[in-house]
Amino acid sequence: MKREAVTEKILSKKRLKGLSWAEINGRIGGCSPVLITAALLGQMKLTREQAAVAADIFELDDEETLLLQEIPYRGSLPTAVPTDPLIYRFYELVSVYGTTWKELIQEEYGDGIMSAIDFDMVMERKPDPKGDRVQITMSGKFLPYKSY
Amino acid sequence: MKREAVTEKILSKKRLKGLSWAEINGRIGGCSPVLITAALLGQMKLTREQAAVAADIFELDDEETLLLQEIPYRGSLPTAVPTDPLIYRFYELVSVYGTTWKELIQEEYGDGIMSAIDFDMVMERKPDPKGDRVQITMSGKFLPYKSY
Amino acid sequence: MKREAVTEKILSKKRLKGLSWAEINGRIGGCSPVLITAALLGQMKLTREQAAVAADIFELDDEETLLLQEIPYRGSLPTAVPTDPLIYRFYELVSVYGTTWKELIQEEYGDGIMSAIDFDMVMERKPDPKGDRVQITMSGKFLPYKSY
Amino acid sequence: MKREAVTEKILSKKRLKGLSWAEINGRIGGCSPVLITAALLGQMKLTREQAAVAADIFELDDEETLLLQEIPYRGSLPTAVPTDPLIYRFYELVSVYGTTWKELIQEEYGDGIMSAIDFDMVMERKPDPKGDRVQITMSGKFLPYKSY
Amino acid sequence: MKREAVTEKILSKKRLKGLSWAEINGRIGGCSPVLITAALLGQMKLTREQAAVAADIFELDDEETLLLQEIPYRGSLPTAVPTDPLIYRFYELVSVYGTTWKELIQEEYGDGIMSAIDFDMVMERKPDPKGDRVQITMSGKFLPYKSY
Amino acid sequence: MKREAVTEKILSKKRLKGLSWAEINGRIGGCSPVLITAALLGQMKLTREQAAVAADIFELDDEETLLLQEIPYRGSLPTAVPTDPLIYRFYELVSVYGTTWKELIQEEYGDGIMSAIDFDMVMERKPDPKGDRVQITMSGKFLPYKSY
Amino acid sequence: MKREAVTEKILSKKRLKGLSWAEINGRIGGCSPVLITAALLGQMKLTREQAAVAADIFELDDEETLLLQEIPYRGSLPTAVPTDPLIYRFYELVSVYGTTWKELIQEEYGDGIMSAIDFDMVMERKPDPKGDRVQITMSGKFLPYKSY
Amino acid sequence: MKREAVTEKILSKKRLKGLSWAEINGRIGGCSPVLITAALLGQMKLTREQAAVAADIFELDDEETLLLQEIPYRGSLPTAVPTDPLIYRFYELVSVYGTTWKELIQEEYGDGIMSAIDFDMVMERKPDPKGDRVQITMSGKFLPYKSY
Amino acid sequence: MKREAVTEKILSKKRLKGLSWAEINGRIGGCSPVLITAALLGQMKLTREQAAVAADIFELDDEETLLLQEIPYRGSLPTAVPTDPLIYRFYELVSVYGTTWKELIQEEYGDGIMSAIDFDMVMERKPDPKGDRVQITMSGKFLPYKSY
Amino acid sequence: MKREAVTEKILSKKRLKGLSWAEINGRIGGCSPVLITAALLGQMKLTREQAAVAADIFELDDEETLLLQEIPYRGSLPTAVPTDPLIYRFYELVSVYGTTWKELIQEEYGDGIMSAIDFDMVMERKPDPKGDRVQITMSGKFLPYKSY
Repeated sequence: MKREAVTEKILSKKRLKGLSWAEINGRIGGCSPVLITAALLGQMKLTREQAAVAADIFELDDEETLLLQEIPYRGSLPTAVPTDPLIYRFYELVSVYGTTWKELIQEEYGDGIMSAIDFDMVMERKPDPKGDRVQITMSGKFLPYKSY
Repeated sequence: MKREAVTEKILSKKRLKGLSWAEINGRIGGCSPVLITAALLGQMKLTREQAAVAADIFELDDEETLLLQEIPYRGSLPTAVPTDPLIYRFYELVSVYGTTWKELIQEEYGDGIMSAIDFDMVMERKPDPKGDRVQITMSGKFLPYKSY
Repeated sequence: MKREAVTEKILSKKRLKGLSWAEINGRIGGCSPVLITAALLGQMKLTREQAAVAADIFELDDEETLLLQEIPYRGSLPTAVPTDPLIYRFYELVSVYGTTWKELIQEEYGDGIMSAIDFDMVMERKPDPKGDRVQITMSGKFLPYKSY
Repeated sequence: MKREAVTEKILSKKRLKGLSWAEINGRIGGCSPVLITAALLGQMKLTREQAAVAADIFELDDEETLLLQEIPYRGSLPTAVPTDPLIYRFYELVSVYGTTWKELIQEEYGDGIMSAIDFDMVMERKPDPKGDRVQITMSGKFLPYKSY
Repeated sequence: MKREAVTEKILSKKRLKGLSWAEINGRIGGCSPVLITAALLGQMKLTREQAAVAADIFELDDEETLLLQEIPYRGSLPTAVPTDPLIYRFYELVSVYGTTWKELIQEEYGDGIMSAIDFDMVMERKPDPKGDRVQITMSGKFLPYKSY
Repeated sequence: MKREAVTEKILSKKRLKGLSWAEINGRIGGCSPVLITAALLGQMKLTREQAAVAADIFELDDEETLLLQEIPYRGSLPTAVPTDPLIYRFYELVSVYGTTWKELIQEEYGDGIMSAIDFDMVMERKPDPKGDRVQITMSGKFLPYKSY
Repeated sequence: MKREAVTEKILSKKRLKGLSWAEINGRIGGCSPVLITAALLGQMKLTREQAAVAADIFELDDEETLLLQEIPYRGSLPTAVPTDPLIYRFYELVSVYGTTWKELIQEEYGDGIMSAIDFDMVMERKPDPKGDRVQITMSGKFLPYKSY
Repeated sequence: MKREAVTEKILSKKRLKGLSWAEINGRIGGCSPVLITAALLGQMKLTREQAAVAADIFELDDEETLLLQEIPYRGSLPTAVPTDPLIYRFYELVSVYGTTWKELIQEEYGDGIMSAIDFDMVMERKPDPKGDRVQITMSGKFLPYKSY
Repeated sequence: MKREAVTEKILSKKRLKGLSWAEINGRIGGCSPVLITAALLGQMKLTREQAAVAADIFELDDEETLLLQEIPYRGSLPTAVPTDPLIYRFYELVSVYGTTWKELIQEEYGDGIMSAIDFDMVMERKPDPKGDRVQITMSGKFLPYKSY
Repeated sequence: MKREAVTEKILSKKRLKGLSWAEINGRIGGCSPVLITAALLGQMKLTREQAAVAADIFELDDEETLLLQEIPYRGSLPTAVPTDPLIYRFYELVSVYGTTWKELIQEEYGDGIMSAIDFDMVMERKPDPKGDRVQITMSGKFLPYKSY
């Protein structure tokens, strides 16, 4: 059994039971809704307790429940350049702002990177009379290149 | 003359004069430092007034100054998957969280995208005893798919 | 169940029942035939009412009907450069006219893009004695790059 | 001498003389502004008369003027999937609507393609209180597959 | 059901019944053997009458017979550069002679293309004492670029 | 000095002297105009005598003249899938008809290929009231796979 | 049924029956063991007699036996650059020695290629005190480019 | 200075002086002509003595002579799949025979590879009344995978 | 049956039985845990004795057990550039340090490579108050390029 | 001025002055020879003091010396899959052992990665009667995925 099969089953049950991510994330709890959703989509792992709730919601069998607790082979996109417009816009930001981020982060912090591992993220609706905005706040620990 | 030549000259002058982006962005002003840096790196455009200041800082001739006011052919990376570790981490976030963003944004807002055009961004240092963090707050207008 | 399976079933039923897109789009109604066809091919979503009619036409079960109301992972082509001659001609237009569109749109409207989201399209037959023509009229809202 | 060098010189002169495409296309005339711009960007050819006017505007020498009358090796984009956001949106339309165009055109006209050669296009501003729209009307002769 | 499944079934029946393309093309008739073979391989479509004969030969059911009358998503090769030696040689001809064809056709006919749609082809054995030759005669309508 | 430089010089001289391929091929002679054009474009080689005439026409120096007599590194296209529409149509023929050619040639001749080396080609105008056609007759020796 | 299925079945039977290629090739006979192995792996074809023996060894049914007599769509590798170390070393030889082979073969024989069709190969163990060597002797007919 | 520049100069001098590889390899000596040619083409290195002779033949300066003694960044082909027909045929052999070599070498020697480093090669003309053959004999040490 | 199926079954049994690699590697024994894990993941082979233990642990049938003793088609990653962050970091090391390794190894040992075949590796936890470290010690035989 | 130009100049001076990396690294000092070599090859940065010594050794001007202190755009390889055999072997290790590293590291440390930033490396000669070995010891801080 592969992780993709669990993802597909979860999406199917979600659809048939008319569940929302808000409800699901609320019931599973224990960490950010972003992380839970990512785990159910096969990109993060759940704890044993979280997986037990997920098993209950999505009627998962033992192996499926265990798979949710395993670290997946990450990478959620079928192509190197994503074709879905919503996801592509984020790729576009990397393409357009990549060198800018590099210059500004390295001037401020020195040689290193913003971690994508020691990392967190919040998504919030930002009401705006001209049309509500999606606000994403990401924060990653700065990791300096080690000199040796 | 190509935009890349202006970028290369700007970086050379910055290097030889020992300027920082903070100083440069402060002198040019008029909008976010992120936007100014991106423009000087060939991804955004400056206003006439901003370009005049930039010309002064970087000793640009007429054509170079005009080029900074032109809309560039965007895309700052030499390869579809970036090789530089700092920039790659952002690509990795798109790869790992892409489908999660899609699910959560679309559940909250309906069918559409977060604009990468009607978009703004702030980068801030977030002090942390375990190591300072890079915080990036992005906000993009939600654009619903038009029904027709 | 994946969206592709619904698309395949829809095409199979259409074929066996001898239906045309014109008939199908007419029965489902509620928006442009282009949008309905795109939805049935897995690139757009239908409303609940539209999906109910589609379910009736194509003998869809509950999950299939729900899937038609979900926002799909968009991108209808199996390769980055399409191999089908009809579709390739559109790719060729982007390849040949891409920089021209960029120059002319940006001279007229300033820095920004033509939205592919707040977008509509009409396809019409344009009779011509030398051979009828396919006329496609696309209109997308101009979205200016935000200064921040 | 390569065609790219002529394009680069034309863009440089346009920039330094502060010319707009509207002015340039108006002075050269003889066909659609879209075609003239495309030719000056190295994707179409000009007639001898048009090239003479262009030579006058952009101070071109003999070989440059002749190059504008040659059929170029077409393809204006540096990568198979364009990175510039304005141009990418058109690629996205091909990706999302490609199979829909195929179905609808072929149901209406039979087996064949919409020509990208016997083709014309008009770009117009469509005023709209919610934000002006870019309207592009393309028409291409339908070419039926020959049976033999 | 997908077109590939029909192609696979046709090849299987051809194999088991010991049929040759010559026999098959002869029985189906109505157009060039090249076209019929291409249709049975999923790249062209048959008429209703031709499909009925094909159904008889290959014991096709209703949907399979209908699929043969549909316009396929064209492109018969699993990779952009074909790996099969016989097919690769044709790709090699495009690679080696591509720019030559462009120069000679455009000098003779002006700006335009040789159509691959209003196109026909004959394959003939050309006996030769040093080893028989494969002769392919292709003819495509010249389509001039439209000026507009 | 690279072969590309010779090709570029030849095209430049041809342009400035207003020569046609027909004239050039006529003056150089000794083999098919297709071969001569291909050689001048850097895909085939000329004999010493032919190169001497070419040197005279294009005012080539010694090394350039010698380069025309060398076997080039073949492959005339900048991308694996050609972007120029005229050349792309030939690629499309390989993509659409590749498996058909394989089936028909191998049924007729057995296991092997049509040589692209022991190969010749003629291009002819085929007048047609509905629009003249480009006719290309290719013939390649059939090479059977050796059994060993 | 596809050729890959026959290959998979053959490998499975070979495995379960504990057969070696040496035994298999010995029993099938009639040509080089290299050719027989290649055919059983789906890259060459067997004669009717050879296929009958293979059918006996691997318990093949009629269609499987016929498939072994068909010319396959050649190309045994899942990626353009092979990932398997043993096979990659051969790719590396092409990459490192490719231009050397071109220079030396063309100096000796003139313009043309070494055929990969009228070709044979022997693999032999070459005992060596420092470690036995794999010796591969390939011979291909030189095919001169035809002048026409 | 880059190795490519030395290769280009060597080829230019060879051309202008009318030298053959046989002569050059003979004068440089000290190892196989294949190795010397590969070194002069930038894929292998020469000894100090060999480089001195090469410097004499090709009028190389000090840095160029030193570069010939450096280990180059290997890989002689501009694309992953070579476009030159002579070189492509070798790639085709890898593609068609790759899995066969793997099976036969590993059955004979166990798990490991044929070294492309502890490797030698001879190219010989093999006269044949039906057309002379190119014979290449390669031998590489078998390297068993180490168990640890 | 394909090797991937055995890998998938092994991972499933491991999951359901709650086994760790440490336990599995301990029970199978006979070589490094790295090698055993790699073999169970389809990249190396086991001996007959090791495979028998594995069969016992994972309830493998005869063919599955035999497959573990076969040399696999190596290459464990679904894409040329790995998307999984843990694995990507190793790819990044090759990308960043590749030319450095080449310079330092070749200066120390001469022309040649570090073997990836006559190779071993140990992974160890290196406790560190600032966070434990993963230590990987690799050793490969230096293989000098053979002169011939 | 680009970093590549500095790298090229450094390699040229090293070559002409007959310097070894051991000497250079010894004179610059202050950190691991691996890091210094990587910096001189354009993948890491030097401190001001180190750059001053480097400037002295390689006769660098001011801008070149400053460039050595800048953080470079990392990625030293011209292609995603390296063609140089020495470097390719490391890529092969990632390809073959990637999933094994993932399993073993994650079992031992939990969900996270081995940092390629907080990372060090030592290369040592390991004498061996059967041929000396290259030993590379890498150690990277384990970074656990943050839960949020």
